[in-house]
This record gives sequence, C-alpha cells and structure tokens, in this order.
Amino acid sequence: MSELHDECGVFGIYKNSEETDIVEETYLALYSLQHRGQIGAGIAVNNEGRMVYHKDHGMIPEALPESELARLGNGWIALGHVKYSSGEAVDHENLAPLVMRYIKGQLAICMNGALTNYQKLRNDLNKGAAIFQSNGDTEIISYLIARARIRSASIEEAVRLAVSELQGAYAIVLMSPSKLIGVRDPLGIRPLCLGRIRDSYVLASESCVFDSLGGEFIRDVAPGEMIVVDKDGMHSYTACKSTKSALCLFEFVYFSRPDTILDGVSVAKARQRAGRLLAQQHPVDADFVCGVPDCGIESAIGYSMESGIRYATGLIKNKYIGRAFNNRKKNSQYLMRIKLNALKHNVEGKRVIVIDDSVLKGDTSKHIVELLRQAGAKEVHMRIASPMFRNPCFLTSDTTPKEDLIASRMTSDEICRYIGADSLGFLSVESLPEIARECKLDFCDACFTGNYPLDVSETSREDKYSQKIK
Amino acid sequence: MSELHDECGVFGIYKNSEETDIVEETYLALYSLQHRGQIGAGIAVNNEGRMVYHKDHGMIPEALPESELARLGNGWIALGHVKYSSGEAVDHENLAPLVMRYIKGQLAICMNGALTNYQKLRNDLNKGAAIFQSNGDTEIISYLIARARIRSASIEEAVRLAVSELQGAYAIVLMSPSKLIGVRDPLGIRPLCLGRIRDSYVLASESCVFDSLGGEFIRDVAPGEMIVVDKDGMHSYTACKSTKSALCLFEFVYFSRPDTILDGVSVAKARQRAGRLLAQQHPVDADFVCGVPDCGIESAIGYSMESGIRYATGLIKNKYIGRAFNNRKKNSQYLMRIKLNALKHNVEGKRVIVIDDSVLKGDTSKHIVELLRQAGAKEVHMRIASPMFRNPCFLTSDTTPKEDLIASRMTSDEICRYIGADSLGFLSVESLPEIARECKLDFCDACFTGNYPLDVSETSREDKYSQKIK
Amino acid sequence: MSELHDECGVFGIYKNSEETDIVEETYLALYSLQHRGQIGAGIAVNNEGRMVYHKDHGMIPEALPESELARLGNGWIALGHVKYSSGEAVDHENLAPLVMRYIKGQLAICMNGALTNYQKLRNDLNKGAAIFQSNGDTEIISYLIARARIRSASIEEAVRLAVSELQGAYAIVLMSPSKLIGVRDPLGIRPLCLGRIRDSYVLASESCVFDSLGGEFIRDVAPGEMIVVDKDGMHSYTACKSTKSALCLFEFVYFSRPDTILDGVSVAKARQRAGRLLAQQHPVDADFVCGVPDCGIESAIGYSMESGIRYATGLIKNKYIGRAFNNRKKNSQYLMRIKLNALKHNVEGKRVIVIDDSVLKGDTSKHIVELLRQAGAKEVHMRIASPMFRNPCFLTSDTTPKEDLIASRMTSDEICRYIGADSLGFLSVESLPEIARECKLDFCDACFTGNYPLDVSETSREDKYSQKIK
Amino acid sequence: MSELHDECGVFGIYKNSEETDIVEETYLALYSLQHRGQIGAGIAVNNEGRMVYHKDHGMIPEALPESELARLGNGWIALGHVKYSSGEAVDHENLAPLVMRYIKGQLAICMNGALTNYQKLRNDLNKGAAIFQSNGDTEIISYLIARARIRSASIEEAVRLAVSELQGAYAIVLMSPSKLIGVRDPLGIRPLCLGRIRDSYVLASESCVFDSLGGEFIRDVAPGEMIVVDKDGMHSYTACKSTKSALCLFEFVYFSRPDTILDGVSVAKARQRAGRLLAQQHPVDADFVCGVPDCGIESAIGYSMESGIRYATGLIKNKYIGRAFNNRKKNSQYLMRIKLNALKHNVEGKRVIVIDDSVLKGDTSKHIVELLRQAGAKEVHMRIASPMFRNPCFLTSDTTPKEDLIASRMTSDEICRYIGADSLGFLSVESLPEIARECKLDFCDACFTGNYPLDVSETSREDKYSQKIK
Repeated sequence: MSELHDECGVFGIYKNSEETDIVEETYLALYSLQHRGQIGAGIAVNNEGRMVYHKDHGMIPEALPESELARLGNGWIALGHVKYSSGEAVDHENLAPLVMRYIKGQLAICMNGALTNYQKLRNDLNKGAAIFQSNGDTEIISYLIARARIRSASIEEAVRLAVSELQGAYAIVLMSPSKLIGVRDPLGIRPLCLGRIRDSYVLASESCVFDSLGGEFIRDVAPGEMIVVDKDGMHSYTACKSTKSALCLFEFVYFSRPDTILDGVSVAKARQRAGRLLAQQHPVDADFVCGVPDCGIESAIGYSMESGIRYATGLIKNKYIGRAFNNRKKNSQYLMRIKLNALKHNVEGKRVIVIDDSVLKGDTSKHIVELLRQAGAKEVHMRIASPMFRNPCFLTSDTTPKEDLIASRMTSDEICRYIGADSLGFLSVESLPEIARECKLDFCDACFTGNYPLDVSETSREDKYSQKIK
Repeated sequence: MSELHDECGVFGIYKNSEETDIVEETYLALYSLQHRGQIGAGIAVNNEGRMVYHKDHGMIPEALPESELARLGNGWIALGHVKYSSGEAVDHENLAPLVMRYIKGQLAICMNGALTNYQKLRNDLNKGAAIFQSNGDTEIISYLIARARIRSASIEEAVRLAVSELQGAYAIVLMSPSKLIGVRDPLGIRPLCLGRIRDSYVLASESCVFDSLGGEFIRDVAPGEMIVVDKDGMHSYTACKSTKSALCLFEFVYFSRPDTILDGVSVAKARQRAGRLLAQQHPVDADFVCGVPDCGIESAIGYSMESGIRYATGLIKNKYIGRAFNNRKKNSQYLMRIKLNALKHNVEGKRVIVIDDSVLKGDTSKHIVELLRQAGAKEVHMRIASPMFRNPCFLTSDTTPKEDLIASRMTSDEICRYIGADSLGFLSVESLPEIARECKLDFCDACFTGNYPLDVSETSREDKYSQKIK
Repeated sequence: MSELHDECGVFGIYKNSEETDIVEETYLALYSLQHRGQIGAGIAVNNEGRMVYHKDHGMIPEALPESELARLGNGWIALGHVKYSSGEAVDHENLAPLVMRYIKGQLAICMNGALTNYQKLRNDLNKGAAIFQSNGDTEIISYLIARARIRSASIEEAVRLAVSELQGAYAIVLMSPSKLIGVRDPLGIRPLCLGRIRDSYVLASESCVFDSLGGEFIRDVAPGEMIVVDKDGMHSYTACKSTKSALCLFEFVYFSRPDTILDGVSVAKARQRAGRLLAQQHPVDADFVCGVPDCGIESAIGYSMESGIRYATGLIKNKYIGRAFNNRKKNSQYLMRIKLNALKHNVEGKRVIVIDDSVLKGDTSKHIVELLRQAGAKEVHMRIASPMFRNPCFLTSDTTPKEDLIASRMTSDEICRYIGADSLGFLSVESLPEIARECKLDFCDACFTGNYPLDVSETSREDKYSQKIK
Repeated sequence: MSELHDECGVFGIYKNSEETDIVEETYLALYSLQHRGQIGAGIAVNNEGRMVYHKDHGMIPEALPESELARLGNGWIALGHVKYSSGEAVDHENLAPLVMRYIKGQLAICMNGALTNYQKLRNDLNKGAAIFQSNGDTEIISYLIARARIRSASIEEAVRLAVSELQGAYAIVLMSPSKLIGVRDPLGIRPLCLGRIRDSYVLASESCVFDSLGGEFIRDVAPGEMIVVDKDGMHSYTACKSTKSALCLFEFVYFSRPDTILDGVSVAKARQRAGRLLAQQHPVDADFVCGVPDCGIESAIGYSMESGIRYATGLIKNKYIGRAFNNRKKNSQYLMRIKLNALKHNVEGKRVIVIDDSVLKGDTSKHIVELLRQAGAKEVHMRIASPMFRNPCFLTSDTTPKEDLIASRMTSDEICRYIGADSLGFLSVESLPEIARECKLDFCDACFTGNYPLDVSETSREDKYSQKIK
C-alpha cells in the first residue's frame, strides 16, 4: 500500500483490418492500465489524418462516456492514456493525449515518465517565443518534434532529433497522420512493450494489456529504441544510443500489475522473491504471514514459502473506495478504516508477520500496525519488500520531497518505534537486484541508494507564473 | 466468482449526541456494505419527524453525490440501503429506503430478503384498494404496518402485527418519527446485527460495518426478534415466535465479507474450513492451489493448509471493472478477460488446483479453466467450496431459475467435462454445516438440498401488468 | 411578470398508426407547455399494458435526456407532464405522471389543479390504512380510483365514482392498460382541450400544443366531461354534473400562452382587450406605452390601440435566465437587473405607460418603476391588466398567503406610493369578464373578488409529519 | 430570425476593492452576452499571477456549474467569454479564454472577430516550429504576443507589436499577471466598450452588460485603441493607426441586443429606423404589421409608426428551445413549428406585413410565410430590415458560403416567389447607413455591397490535417 502515486499508462494501436473496432480496443486496454493512473483518461483516433479525441478527468467510466466514444470515429491508429494522480488539480490541458497541429498536419502524443532537463528545455523554448497551455513534459516534446520536423525529411527523423534533446525517463507513444511511433528512453527506465492483438500492432506500458485483450506479447521495446508501425508493417530504429540501462526497480515493487512481465521478469515472481529474501534477512517466529493488499500479497506468499510459516489473509481492502470517496471534503478521521480492515478471526491472539511493498511517509504503516493490534494481534512484525526509501525520485511524474520520506531522517529502529511494530525489517539494498535477476536490463535503485543513473541536479521546476499583482 | 447476484444491505442508526454526523456515518457504512448491492443506494434522515431522503441508481459515488447528502439535514435517526443488481432495469420507486406518509406521520423502511407469500399479500391488499408504486416487498410491508397501526397502540405493536403476516426471509430496518426499529425473520435466514458506534446504536446487515466505522459489535439480532431504539435506549421484543432457525449458508459461501462475523462464526473461518474439507474430500496432487477472487481466496488458503500443497496467486481480478463497464452496449466477446487474468508466471507448466465459491450456470467456471490452460497450466483441478447448487433460492432478492442451474441437469462428471477441467470436486452436502459449526443457528441449505425451511409453493409472482392493448 | 408561479401542464396521446413516434410527440408537446411548469417533467408510455416512465427535476432538456427517452418504448398511449415551481424542494415522488399498480394492472395519471377537500380525503384514506409516498393530489385521486375500481365494472365507471368525491379544480389525464382518459372539473376551472395530431387523439392543457405539432384543435373538454379514447375511437361521458361554470380568469391574465384559445377566446385577444379597457378606465397622457414581457405585451398593444399613444419596447427580458440561474446560492442584490433591463434609448426623457399583467407582492412592480426611472423616464405610469389581487387562490397548485398580497392590505394609492410610480391603475373588477366575453363559460374571479365558486373553508393542509423527537 | 450564427462575446474586469466578487460579476456579465454565443463559455481568474480557469461546452448553466466557479479563486482580474455556434463540433481547446504560459508567466486571452490573414500568419508560425492545439485565431494572436514579448520592454509594447501583424476584425481582451488589456481592430469592425461597475473597470462587447450589472458606460474603445487597466488606473494607447473606420452594420441588424448602444447609436433606434425606411421604400396596405422575434420586433414598430398601420403580435417564439433541443438526433420535420407559432387570433383573415431582420438562405422566411398563411392570413407582405445579403462575411467567426446565400443567385422577385409571399421588400443599400447615422464611425456593409473594407482575398483556411492514411 505505497503512498507513492501511480505512474501514467500509455497505449497505441495500428490496426490492419476494417473489422477491428479501434476505439473499443483502446478503451478496454485502458481498463488494464487503470492501476497506473486514475486522475484522468483520454483516447485520440486518427481518422485519415484528422485526429479526433476525448479526454477528461476521473476514472475511465467518468472520463470516457459512451457518448463521447461514439463520436471518435473508427480510424486506423489510436492512442490511449491514463493519468496518474498527483494530488493537485490538473487542468484539462494537462491531460493526454495531447493533440496538436503543426506544419505537417496533426500529431497526437502521450507519455509516461519525467524529464530531468524540463526546465532547461522550457527556458530555451520560451526564448524562442513558445507558448504553453500545459505545464507538462508532453507539450515540451511536441515542440521539439515540431522544431525538428522543419529540418527533417521524415517524422521518424524528427522524433529521433527531438528525443536526442531529452534527458530523463520516458515511454512515448505518438501518432502522425500515417504512423504509430513508440520510443523508450535510452536507459529503459520506464517500461514499454510491443504486442499484437489479432491483426493489429499495439504498444503498451505493460504486457498485461495483451493478455486482457486476448493478444500476444511480442517483445519489450529496447532502451533507446524507436518502433514505427505504418502500412508496411513494423520497423525498428535506434532513437538514441544506449550505453547502459537502468530499469526502475519500483515498477516491480509497486507500479506494475503482478501479471505483467517486464523486460523478461514476471512482476509476481519478483515480488515473491522479495518475500523470500526478506524471510532470509529478517526471520521471525510467528503464527502466520500476511500481505498488505494489493502489492504486498505476492511478497507475503514468498515469505511464507521461504519461512514455512503459513500464509493467511490479515487485512481486507474495500475495493469500492475510489476517487469520489477520496475527494470528499468531509474527511472523517477514520477514513482509513473504511479502506482497510483487519480480519479479526485470523489475527486475534496471533503473532503476525505483515508484508508491505514500501514505506514512504510511514503513516500507512503506523495505521496498519494499529489495525492489527486492535484486532487482537499478539505481536506485529512488519517486513518491507523493498529497501529503505530515502531519496526522492525525479524520474516519475510524482516526486515526494526528501523531507517527507521517513527513511531519510530515521533509522529502521526509529521507524519501528514510530509505527509501533514489534519488529521491522527492510529488504537489503544489496539483495534488491536479485529479485529481478533474469532481467535483460540493469536497474535504477536511486530511491534506495541515491545513485541516480543520470544527472538530476537541475530537475527543480520553477514556477514563474505567480508574479504578484497590486 | 458467483453468478448469483448480491443481496441487499441495510443500515440504521440512532444517534445520542449532537456531534454525531449521522449522514456521514450512514454514508460510510454503506461503503462497507457496497458488496451486497450495486444497482442503487439511498439514505433517509429523520429530521424531527420529517423524513428527508435521497436515493438513486448506481454505486455509492453516483447514487449519493455530496450535493444531495448536504440537504438531508442532521436528524437523530437515519437509514441506509444498498440495492442488489438483478440485471433488470429498476424504477426509481423500487429503490430504498421507501419513505411513506400514513396516519401517524412519516415512516421510512428498507429491507434485505424476499417474501414467499408476496403474491397472496399483494392480492389481499389489491382487494382492499391498495395502490403500489413499486413491485417490491418493502411496499407490501409498509401497507401491512399502516393497516396494523390503525388497530395498534404503538408502532412496535403495529410492526409486530405486520410481520406476523409475513412469510419468507427478511431483515427489516425502519424508522418512525421517534424510533429506530429492526426485525429479523423468525428463521433468521437473513442476517442482522446490532452494534454501537461511539454514542449511537446501529443496526446493520453485517458486522464488518462496525469495524469499519471504529465501533463495536454488540450482538446478532435473534431470529424473530425486534430491536427498538428510542430516547430511552435499546429495547428487545419478540416480533414473531421462532421455533427453529435456518440461517442462509450462502451468506458464508458468497454474500458476506470475509471480515464479518455471522451469528458467531467468522465468514473467513467458514471459507477456510470449506477449503480444508474440500482437501479431505477431493484430494489431488498438484503444484499449487489458488482461489478465484474474491470469494475463493480463503477457501484456497484452507485447502492449502489441509493438503500441504502451497498456496499461490493464479488469477488476477481487475478491480476497476464496475457497473459502467458492465452496462456498456458494445459487449466484446473477450470482456471476461478484462475482468480476470491468469498469472502466467505462477501457472505456466504447473498442475493447478483452483477453488471457486460456487457454480450456478457454469460459464464462469468454463472461462476460468480456459484462462488457466491458455496461461500454460498442465492440469486444472477445480474445487468448489460449496455443494452442487441445484435448487432455486426463493429467499433472496434474485432467483436464478432451476433450468439455468447446471447442477440441476448434469452430474459432477458432466459438469467437469463441460467446463473442461481435469477434475472437479464439490463440497459434500453432509459436511456443509461443518463449515460454520459453532453457529448459534441452524442452516438453510435449500439451494443444495431442496429442503426449504418454509413453504415456497406460492412464490411465483404474477405479472398482471401486461394486458394487451389493441 | 407575475409573481404567481405557473400552473402544471398535462398531455395525453392515443396513437392510431404504427408510424407515430409517441415519445417524440409527447416530448415536443411538453416544449409547448414548458411555460406552465419548470420544476420537473415526466413522460409515461403504455407498452401493451406495461407502463414505462421517466420523470425528473428540471426543465425538459435536463429532466428528459435522450438516453431515457430511448428506453420508454413506443406503445400506443402516452402521458406527459410539466410541473410548476412552488419554490420548495419537490421529492421525486411528487413529480408526475404517477405510475401505479393496482388490482387491474397499471395506471398512469397526471393532473393540473388543486383539490379543496384534499385533507378530508387524505384523512379518510389514512383511516383506511393508506400509505402515501407523495404529498400531492394525484396520489389521492389514484387511491380513489383504485377504491372505486373494486366496485365498478369498468375503468370509466371507476374514474366517474372517484371524481365524484373530488372538490376543487382539476384537469386530469390518465391511462389504463387500454384507454386514454381525460376529465375536467365540473366548474371548468382548469382548462383541458381535445385535438388531433395526424392520426392520433390528444388531450392537452392548452390548444397551442396542437398548432406546434402541426395538428388541429377539436374542442374544449366541457366542465365535468370525461373523454375516453380507446381502440374504437373517442367517447364522451358526463363524469360529474355541472350546474355552473367558473373558468379561471387568471389563465387569460397570465398562465396561458397568447396563441392558446381557451373555451372559445384567444388569450392574446383577452389581453389586448384588458389593455383597451385599461386605457378607458385609466387614461393618461404619455409619450409611449410599453409592456412588461412576456405577459404584459399584448395588453400594452391594446392600450396603445385604444389610446392612440404609440407602442414601443420599454423593457428587455433576458431569455436565457432559467432555473439554474434562479437556484444559485449566491444571490447578488442586482439579480433582477440581469433578468430585465430598460431600453434607455426609448425611455430616456419620456413619459412612459408600462403595463403589467398583475401585482401580487409588489416587489417586481417597484423594481420595474426603478429601472425605468434610472433609464431616464420622466414619468412612469403603471397600469395593471387585471384587478387588485386580494385573495389567495386555493385552486392552483401554488397559493400565495393573503398576508403577502399587497392589495389585501393597501389601497391602489398606497401601492402607487410603495412602488414609486407617478400613477397606477388596475382594471376594474366589473369589466374583467368583458375581456373574455365570448367565452362559453362563466368565470372564477375569486382572487380579485373573494367570491370563490366552491367551498374553500377546509383547504388548509395539515402537516402531521413533524412530531418532535427527543 | 437570422440564419447567421451569433458572434462571440468578450468581457474583462479589473477590480479595485476586496469586496468585489470578481467571479460573480463575470458570471452575471456573461448572462447579458449569452445572445452572442451559445456553444460554450469560459471564465479565467488571475490569482496573483496564477491563472485559474474553467471553460466548457453549452450555455452558461451547463458550461459554468457552481462547483467549478467555486474553485476559481477571487483574484483581481478576470476574463469571460461566450462562444458562437458554427454548427460544427468544437474541441475543448477551441473554447476561450485561452490560458497560456510563456516566457513572462501566464496570460489569458479571448476575442471576438476573425483574422483575414490567419492562414499566412499560421504558415509563418508553422515555419517557426509552432504547435497549435486549436484551429482558432486566439492561439495565433497568443503566439504573436509571445514572439513580440521577447523583444519588447512591456506587455503593452508586445501587444502593440502583435496586433500590428493582424489583419481582420477583432475585439481582444487579455490579462497579464498584472494588467487587463483590451484592443479593438483599427477599422472598429467589431465592437468593444469600456465601463465601470462600482469600483471596477470593465471591458465588454456590448454596453448592455453595464446596465445589467448596475454599472455605467464610460465610452466605446476607439478603432485601433488599446485600453490598459492596472493598479494605477486606466490608460489609453494607440495600438495601431486607424485611418478609416468600418463598424459592422450587422451588429445593428442582428448581433447586438436592442438595449445596447454601439458607438453612439442605440441598437433599438437603428432597428426602428430601418423599419421606418422600409415603410417609405416598400409601402403596402395591410391590416397590421408584426415582427419576427426577436430581432424583427423593433423594426416592425418602426414600420408601424411610419406607415400608421397598427402594430400587433403575429408570431410567438418558444423561448425554451435551446441547445439541447437543437442537438437532438431525432429531428422531426415540424421542429420549426415548435420554435415559432403564428398568433391565429391576430392573423386570421388579415393582410399582414411581417418584418424580419435579414434573409440568408431563405428557408426561414419561407417557413414564416407558410405559418402565417396556415393561420389564415389573407395576404403576407414580407419586409426585410436590411438589404439583400449577397456576399459572404469573412469578418465574423461564421461564414456562410456565397452559394448558400439566396440573394446571390435570385432577384428580390424570385425570392418573393420562392418564399411564397405576396410581396417582398428589402431595405435599399443606399439608405442603410441612415439607420445609424449619428454613429461616430463609418460602416462595413460588405455583406450587402461586396465592398470589403480590407483585403479578403486570402481568407481561405487550408485544412492540411487530412493527409490520407493507407
């Protein structure tokens, strides 16, 4: 139950048969990516070069009503996007896909990730008299493509030139009047994969999309690779040279769905392994082990297998709690109880090991310990299926400031006392890469180690939009 | 993943302190009962005898928007209700609570259950020139109370007289201008329990409500008991004589939340026991055992504990699929995939035991077996944590006709072939009561055995509202 | 610009051809009746005896969205209703048509008017153990029909028996499984007329509906008459004996649309005559005469014709101000300006005669005089196209209490001073019947004279729904 | 009842007192401008340099719900906009105000009008690698300001530089972090005026806004003038040199509200004069003269005054027909009847003169003649209060193509036959300027004469967004 907000989810499809209902496929795909972003969703469809789109706030049913889907047409290429929740209000213009008109017609674009040289790029563009309607990375990239397109022979070339200016983590999916294009950042920080659904090539943030739509996974897009799909089929290019890789480990810990396979590694398997390693590193005698739903479940099963302590359900999550509930003004002090309840029958009088995926601010952990104690747990041993989260991440769309990260200012013992557990154990930093050891890529573990895979010294984003008046 | 639709959920509160925000408590309580009904929700508040209410279609966020909650006032008594989904359109008048005016002022009422003598009562009332705006049991009961009130000295007396005419299963919660009243049917078929939230007495379908609101469980309402809460506190009466009891076993199998304790038995525990018994009755060698979310999970854990075969996650449920998705006109053939996906990493090349709560029509089971096979399962052994469901239930609000029940026309072996499993095992009818053996009540197991605890020969409901025209 | 709230509007259609889109006709008809009620609207369709309906709050576009119309079916009979605004919140159950089930199947019913023996009827029904979901007259009438139906051979007979118990003003339209029935009260207080739209018989509150739908007016329903339309055509019966008549004069003054013809008299013509009479009774020298939109326009034209003083536009009404605007919480003090503005060019430096339809509380008149003065009018002479409104009306759905009627406590001179006009003249009571002198009926002028055409001594409606609690 | 679509309406306010509720004032102002645009509305508020806004489709109540207004803050400057309806779907990005971020912070901008060098400017910007999210003029102007701001010392200077590149008709209102700025095109084609509401300076398309809000008109913004309001008060600058003027005559004919005063001339007066001139130019004997609501009324009164033929109401407009009605898919053939009905009482057996504001395609006129004939008119003489509309207007936001203009291919006599009138008369082109003869500006009458006040040879807007795919 991470306090980190979800990532965005991207999707693109190029259909090869009149029969394919491109809007329906995109709509369904977004359901399988909904866990990556719940503040807004959008779909854009390429109707013979004319991009028709709808995007709005809310989860899919609210953002994409049937009546709006009906007017999107049934073109050959489509994009879909779900937007993460950063807690702040998000203007309509910040939703995706962004549909723009430029010298070569229309272009639609969406992304998952964060640029570390956003401010520099924006300052440069400002000096060139750019205007921005959003404050997001996507609009920056759109400008770079438009600028590059002036001096490029093709959209592929323009995209290549544009991304060569980017620093950061990104999975971009865009469509020109005639092509579907996907690019993954040179470090492969954010995931992007290629699949086929019946006749159509699709790009998606996670492989679970292909399963859900009855399609098949082809392969992960390689770091720095650009995939282009057009009427002649699928083509692969190098967008930017990739000398090392740094796949975000938190995708395994929290962001991705357990049935996703990421650069060769099952997310479920990685979580189970984290649980097994935890059992080795922080053994404790107890009556049973349980997980905090949803992301702690697999690790708890792993801990159970390794330790031989039986697995049981300790906490029940109310699956009906959504955005409407969270946005209510009248916030009772006991809202967290509605979201999570202890399963008293299992817990009462027992020594419980409870596995969560990560600890950011610490309040959720504290609440969980209280819940279990109130349900009669004799002992509560908390185990965290990732190391101490000490450093802000500048490579996701939502950055928790360092001062809010409890592990940046407390030791494990101090945190244990703060949350009121009988014992607390984090996965060791050293063993972390082990959880996804078959992975084709190296990892970014900056949130745990501070070793950022690229320069993050200029990530602060100025807000110069508040010159005082009067 | 039962194909049986959920029951309704009822809630009532009588507050004892000005500080209590009665609408907020009721609203939050309904979130904990949302699993019992998703087609509509309503809240009625007693503002010094004047009942103000709002009810509408949809899940809680849609049915009960903040703006409507704001106008309900902050009286001393309130009711809340979530309505089950029967698949049919439900007129606004069929939602609950029903707020009526009669000779003694206003009365609000809601219920969970089904009357078996509905048609007889309705015919009687029709002959007395009654008019009905709904086609539900609640309006019948309202009439009986109004009729009884004419010749009764008190509302308590009137309710007692009214329920003495009822046959069937019911948990009724109602409020008069000055009292909160709850009644449970004499067989205790439908659950109802009493708790305290801070200063207030509350009645609810399930005990998990009290946990969620930070309150405490006091006790189950006894079969045939009437609870009255007024300014002098809580009072208990006998509403109708109860000579035997017949608590619905399906509440343990499917309807209730695992953290609910029902007439002395934890629902989670009952499901685990069903799993243990299944392991004894239908052992099979396999690599792991998994459950169909949500209701098969606890039984799978039980099977695992008993058999020693390890527990793992085999299926992932998309928790974002709600009413809006299910109501879409454009229903792709692969919709079930979006709802449920197999966890390939765990399943591939493995012999899998999969536990589901029940089998009604059989299509869901068939789909689950297919999913697991496509994910590479070497063998799929399905185990059902309840006996063969052969007889229609006339004691819930949604009755699947006998001809649609696969177990009414096929043997277990035939079903096994139909769903394509390698083996199939149902819990034996004889062992069923065992799962809730500490229960203070006897059980209704009519859906499995055909032994209805009361006369169901006249349950058919005529529809005389279709006299041909022209 | 009367401060009296609008009446309701009723509509019924019995189609004779498969081609007729009965929902579309009803929907369009309601647009032509929208001026009679803006708080809610509803349509019920008889699909071979099964009544499907939708009703909701708001003006037509809000209350009757396309998606709801689509599910109403295309039966042979339909009802439509627009509900007046009384200022109070109206529960869903108080909207119309009311669709009920009773011993003979379903019945839908709606009305315009008010019963003077409501409380007595309700008390009687309460003693017979009735329950009410609304606090409206329609539900009372439904009960009386159900009660009468027990001892009647036909629905016609039952309706006749039921209305014989009613006292008051009413135009009722109802449909049984096979018949469309309309009844007008024996005094003919509220209007109801019969027309034909292409193949279909229709009943409507006003004749303008037939024009708008391209149909034809047949005749007014006579006081006390019952019209029945079934597969054999149209039949006329006497529902209750009518010895005198008392058509509401305010229908001519304010309620009806100018293009309606009411019991033989054009509403526009009646208003022009009122203007002519005013010119005779209260002549004054001025530069031009103008009307308060919408209802004062025709009278101003009449005043101009009679006096020879030229007609011009003095006030502009903002036609976009609707319910949403009026319901805003944040009510600026200058809201009335947004609704009405003086046409400075015409008014400045001029002596203005301004004609309004009526004066109830007096605030609107005061505001109008101020507006004209601020626009530079040298003199403002207000003329009212009806007599002094001194007595509450108990025969419409919205009764302004006597103490709020300015004419009940001030003389014309005092009102003139209160509103700040240079002179003020009301139409004389004696000349009032003159405005509709060709009318086939006599008139009710009780609001002006206090001569109620029937006993109104028991019209007060008790509210016994507020017994104190605690 | 022009078939020309409305113009947009603009509004800006700079408040001088904490007490002023700037959102409320803007919201109310938009109600007074609603007649200028009904497809969408928006408000942007400057909260100390941070622009918060909401814009959406629909008329004001739909586009600007209370909940969105509540989050706009209460800054010192605000803009409001209503958007015209061109019949096409309008993407969210095409609504106004456009809020952008650029090198100097945020800027919000809205306009009424049309650029004739749009395509050239856009091509230039495209070559400079611009990206566009709308296809409107406002975004072009935003870019020009951003580009100019790079080389300007102030926002005033940048706006001046930017508008010097514009050709066309425009009234622009924008706000920088600290200033409210309004600019009117050098020919003064589109109107813009300055007023004061209590303590606040306001800019608006029409003077009726000031009346409605209880404020006062100060003066029209002069052609080519730039008004700047900041903490030091109001300043006037020359934005571009104006050597001649060309106020749109159609503002008098149709666009503006009759209570507006435009560059010194009352719109109502201009319409009355058009009526008087018509009476001189096309006299005819008849029983009465009436106007087509809303814009023909004043001219009909003028015709009546000049001819001595009495004025009466001939047609009734249903004021409840709005966007929801017009957007319905199911369009019956008799929809126009619902919108407009003849007042039979006045019309029957009479010789009628009917005055309309203009004729574009001719279908509305044809329908009106039919309506009057069906209501029994003996003769129908149509008079048009403007000359023959023969040439497309490129200076409003909605251009009817020449081939659709009936007067571009038929003589007056042919049109008379087409619409079925007994006679038809248009105002002569020569006398047209007469209707607003006190006006401080010269006029644009290009739609009647073809004499465009500026080069319109390059107004065609390419749509290069439809390159074929596959």
